[in-house]
Formats: sequence, structure tokens, C-alpha cells
Amino acid sequence: MSQVDKYLEKPAEWLRVSGPLSDVVISSRVRLARNFAGYPFLEKLTSRQQKEIAELMAATVKAVQQFKDSEYIRYNEIAELDRQFLLERHLISREHAAEKGYQSVAVTDDEMISIMVLEEDHLRQQTFQPGFNLREAWRVLNQVDSEIEKQAEYAFTPELGYLTACPTNVGTGLRASCMLHLPGLVLTKQIQKVLQALSKLNLAVRGLYGEGTQATGNFFQFSNQITLGQPEEEIIENLECVIQQVVEHEKNARQFMREEKKLRFEDQIWRALGTLKSARMISSQEATGQLSLIMLGAELGFIGKAVVLQELNTLFLLIQPAHLQKTAGKVLDSTERDAARASLIRERLSKVIM
Amino acid sequence: MSQVDKYLEKPAEWLRVSGPLSDVVISSRVRLARNFAGYPFLEKLTSRQQKEIAELMAATVKAVQQFKDSEYIRYNEIAELDRQFLLERHLISREHAAEKGYQSVAVTDDEMISIMVLEEDHLRQQTFQPGFNLREAWRVLNQVDSEIEKQAEYAFTPELGYLTACPTNVGTGLRASCMLHLPGLVLTKQIQKVLQALSKLNLAVRGLYGEGTQATGNFFQFSNQITLGQPEEEIIENLECVIQQVVEHEKNARQFMREEKKLRFEDQIWRALGTLKSARMISSQEATGQLSLIMLGAELGFIGKAVVLQELNTLFLLIQPAHLQKTAGKVLDSTERDAARASLIRERLSKVIM
Repeated sequence: MSQVDKYLEKPAEWLRVSGPLSDVVISSRVRLARNFAGYPFLEKLTSRQQKEIAELMAATVKAVQQFKDSEYIRYNEIAELDRQFLLERHLISREHAAEKGYQSVAVTDDEMISIMVLEEDHLRQQTFQPGFNLREAWRVLNQVDSEIEKQAEYAFTPELGYLTACPTNVGTGLRASCMLHLPGLVLTKQIQKVLQALSKLNLAVRGLYGEGTQATGNFFQFSNQITLGQPEEEIIENLECVIQQVVEHEKNARQFMREEKKLRFEDQIWRALGTLKSARMISSQEATGQLSLIMLGAELGFIGKAVVLQELNTLFLLIQPAHLQKTAGKVLDSTERDAARASLIRERLSKVIM
Repeated sequence: MSQVDKYLEKPAEWLRVSGPLSDVVISSRVRLARNFAGYPFLEKLTSRQQKEIAELMAATVKAVQQFKDSEYIRYNEIAELDRQFLLERHLISREHAAEKGYQSVAVTDDEMISIMVLEEDHLRQQTFQPGFNLREAWRVLNQVDSEIEKQAEYAFTPELGYLTACPTNVGTGLRASCMLHLPGLVLTKQIQKVLQALSKLNLAVRGLYGEGTQATGNFFQFSNQITLGQPEEEIIENLECVIQQVVEHEKNARQFMREEKKLRFEDQIWRALGTLKSARMISSQEATGQLSLIMLGAELGFIGKAVVLQELNTLFLLIQPAHLQKTAGKVLDSTERDAARASLIRERLSKVIM
């Protein structure tokens, strides 16, 4: 029994279909980059210093109220597959998972808050909220950050604010982001126009798994580019304002699909369902795309209410490679995963649709 | 109620899944080109002569034993849609359906024999048999031809044999063909190699609807090119021999799919079923291709025995444009047909599969 197994069967709290505008905004995330005073940045840390920082954080989180029920997971004590699993659940980053030192992560039991230790910065704290709720995410994380700051001294100067390994994070160290489901804009071929407009507003657009990943399944992560020279509340307010407009565009596209092109899109959505209920092998990329269409179908009312959106959200996680292998209880090669994925999807969809 | 309506609901006898090698050879067909002595070929016929020939045949078939239960259908008395319907049932040719004169066709009630009047030649007699059975087709048609010859004089010379409008038909006037279902060779990418080898043997390969049509749904019509200088039995024997070899290749391909690449092809076949059971719009070309895969799936044992092959064979006809419109009882535009086709397929498949 591994330290991460307990997360397998229950859906992450922040993936609950709830919160404001949850038909378009899947989740809201805020992260803070922090470094301790008296230590160099990660690149220059000796192995002994890495260990010191990891143990310092293990002790520190114990005293943080929000981490009363939590795990402190040291990477050198878990399997490679378990790191992949944490990555798929968005609890850690791809870069962090690949490190070879004393990296660790503190995770609350509800998976709403995690703190990566020895990522690009000494600490990367993050919190998720379901739906469109950046303010609540910021409120929660700001409290966590204050609790930690009571116990440890951060690298900070009055002129620059919080110091970070990469200059793009200096100042607030804050990145706020929302994961948006935009099948309407993709299928009506308006997405490029929207993304081009956003690129002029200092916003970054990424895929399901953050930096360096492609948008799959019509999921897009929008985040601020600027961390310096603006108070945190203003950064969040700006992002909120832009996302509100994207949501508006997506809703218009969905209305167009429902009212003007019903038969065409209904066909596309039902075919996705037919494929998922029939395939004997399916890649995670294809499955994510098809599940996205079914999610859209449920939102548009094309597919009966019997489709439980919550079940779909859970499926998005369960079909990822590490989740599949942990469910199977063994290592699977690529072909075996494609077969296991198809079989899992057929089984779970048969419970909720038709 | 139109003269052709009675054919709509019952499946054509020759489409019964029976006869030798019916898992690969759908049907066998023989046709004879004949012209009456004392008349020029079609191009030079006056309107009055056309009418004379049409009425001559109407009277002649009445005395032919095999046409005791039959219809004599004059094109100027039926709707455009009904001609299209007869074409889809392979009872007449595309060229014949498009003519503007006194064209007509005699059709037996079981649809096994038809005689087109005023096609490229004055008469084009044809008979179908289910499965691989060219000899029986030839035996039946030879009898019909003799019965007609008792009542009318054909254009014939001892040196050339039967005279025809196009020199490629002179001699026996015979074309024998088989409709083969070759999904194994197509999916394992061996079909081009096989077709190339056949082109050296004076064989013609065509699509579902004969001359000038593309192979769709993995159906291929193989026929002899030569009509002169060989007795009828020899022409048929040669064609039989080649088709026997193609059948052998197809069966090997299917065995390979079943034994070596089960998961991959099973996936492909189940996806076809998922699409057909889900689509809300589908073209006849796509539907034919997907139905072909399901037929293969039933043959390979991937899809349960509950799939009734007979039902699939009927569906191939019912999804054609004129069949759809006659079933609906009204003219449908292309989008309406795609929707009606998808709906018909869902309904009929739900009765036989899962």
C-alpha cells in the first residue's frame, strides 16, 4: 500500500462540478513561488541543504492549520509510478516529478492545497477551487502563506518583493490560472481568433498539464504573465475580467450549436459516445477529446440528464496512464494501457448512459 | 402505389446469404447482350421502332416460363425515383435508367432475372444467384435466352456469333461477374497487389454498381473482358478459377486478422458498430463502409452470432437514396436523407445487436 493510494478512488475535491460558471470553468488555481532567506536557489543548493529544506518544511506544515489532515510525501520513498500519479492529479509539476534530489510535496487530504518543495523555487504553494473562484483560491493560499511566514524567513526585498529563481516570478510570485473547457469555440472554429486576442493581453495559454503541454480535449489553462508591479488582488481581477469574456464567447458558441446547427453537432457528440462505448483500444489523447464532446453534449442537453458530469470528471483522471496502472495494480505497456482504458471507459459509461 | 413498390420490403432473393462461399462471394451474375434481326442498333432506331421493340418484348416475355410471375415496367409510366430504386436493386443499369425513349424492363417477382429492353443493345438479359454459383446463373439464363429465341430472330452470323452495338460484346454477348466482399484484403492492405495481378488476366474490376463506379464498402465486382473466341462454358470456368484464388487470399487475410491482430481489428469493427448505433447523420458511402466492417466482424466471430447477416444485406439496399425516399414516402434532400439513413440504421441494428 503506497502513501498516495488513498487518493485513487475518491475524486479530487476541486474537480467537483460546482462553483461559479462550472459549465465552462472547470477549476481555478493560484500558486505562490517562495524561497527561504539564507539559502541559494535550487541550482546552487548542496545535497545537505536540500535535505535541510525538505525537513524544515516537513516540520513547518505540521503547524499549519490547513494541513492538519495531510501527507508529506518524499519522492525518494515512493515509486516512479506514484510520482506520475501525483502529476496526473495536478498535485505536482512535470519538472518536479523528474527531479532526483530531496524533492517532496505536502498534500491536504482533500487535495485542495499542495506545496511542492524544491521545485524551481524552494516552495511552490498552490490551491485549487472548483469552478470560477480565483478570489477564494487566493484567500485560502494567502492564509497558508502567512502561516508559513510566521515560522520561516522568506527571501524578500522591499524594492522587488519576493525573490525567485526565475525573474518572471519576482514580485508577488503569484500565478493565477483557470482551466477552461472550450469545445464550443473549438468546434465552431473561433478558438484561434480568441487566443490571438488574448496573447496581446499578457496572458499565457497552456494545455491540461500546464507549462509545455498542448491543449487536449478542448481544455485550456489561462494564466497571468506579469508578477511584478501589481498587487495580488489586481492581478487576479485582471485575469477574472478576461476569463469572463472568454466564457461569454464560449456560451455564445454553444448557443449557436444548440440553435443553428443542432443536427450536425448532435451527430458529432453521439458518434463520440458510440466510439467510447465500443472501442477496444484507445489512447488517452483520443479518449480525452471524445469525453470532452460528451461533456459538451450533456451541457447542451443533447445527451440525457442521466449523464453524470461528475462521472466524466472522474474519468478524465482515471484514464491517465499512472491512474490506469494503479487501478490495474501492475505496470502495463502502451498497448495494454490502450486496451485497459477502452475497457474502463465502456464499463463506467454503461453505468451512466443508456 | 407504384408498380415497383412490392419489391421494397422483401429482400431480393439473390441477396440471401446462402450458396457456395457466401462469406466472401455475395452474388454471381450472368448477362447476355442480344439484338433483334431486321432492326438497326439503338442509336439508329426511330422512335416508332423503339416502341415496336418494347411492345414485342412485352408480348414475348409473357410466353417465357420463367417470367410467369413478373412485371413489365415501362419507364415512361414510372417516376424518376422508381428508376433510381430499380438501379439500387441492381435490376437495371445506370445508363438504362437515364434514357429518354421507350426503355422498359421485365423483372421476375423474385428479382432473380431481369431483361432490360433498349439498353446499349436491344436486350440485356441478366440473372443473379446468391453466393458463388456462376454455372447455375448461366444455366438459368441460357434457358431464358432459348425461350426468347424461339419467338424472335436475333442478329447473328456464323463467323462472329451474336452481333452487338459495341464490339467488346460480339460473339457470346456474355458477361459473367461475381460481387466479392474483400474487407480482409483491404484492411491488411493487400488489395492493390491482388488487383494488379488480376488486370493481367483480362479481368475487369468494378464497384458495387458496375461500370464506372468505385469500389465502396470493400465490395468488388469481377468480370470477364473477352466475349469472342471462347465458348460460354470456358469463359465461366476461367472466371471461376480466378475468383477461387481471390477467395483463398481473402480467407487467409481474415485468418491473419483473427489470429495475429485480433485486438486491433476487433477495435476497428466495434468502433464501426458504435458509429452506426450512434450517428445522427450518415452518408450512404460511409454507411456502406461501416456495414462492411460489421459484416466482417460477424464472419470473424468478433461480434456475437446475434448479428443476423441477412439483416445487414437488407440494410445495404435500404440505405440507398431511392430506397430511403420510398420508405419515407416522400422526396428528401441530401441532409434529410443522411438523417433518415442514420435513424433507420440505429433502429434496425438495435433489433439485432446488443
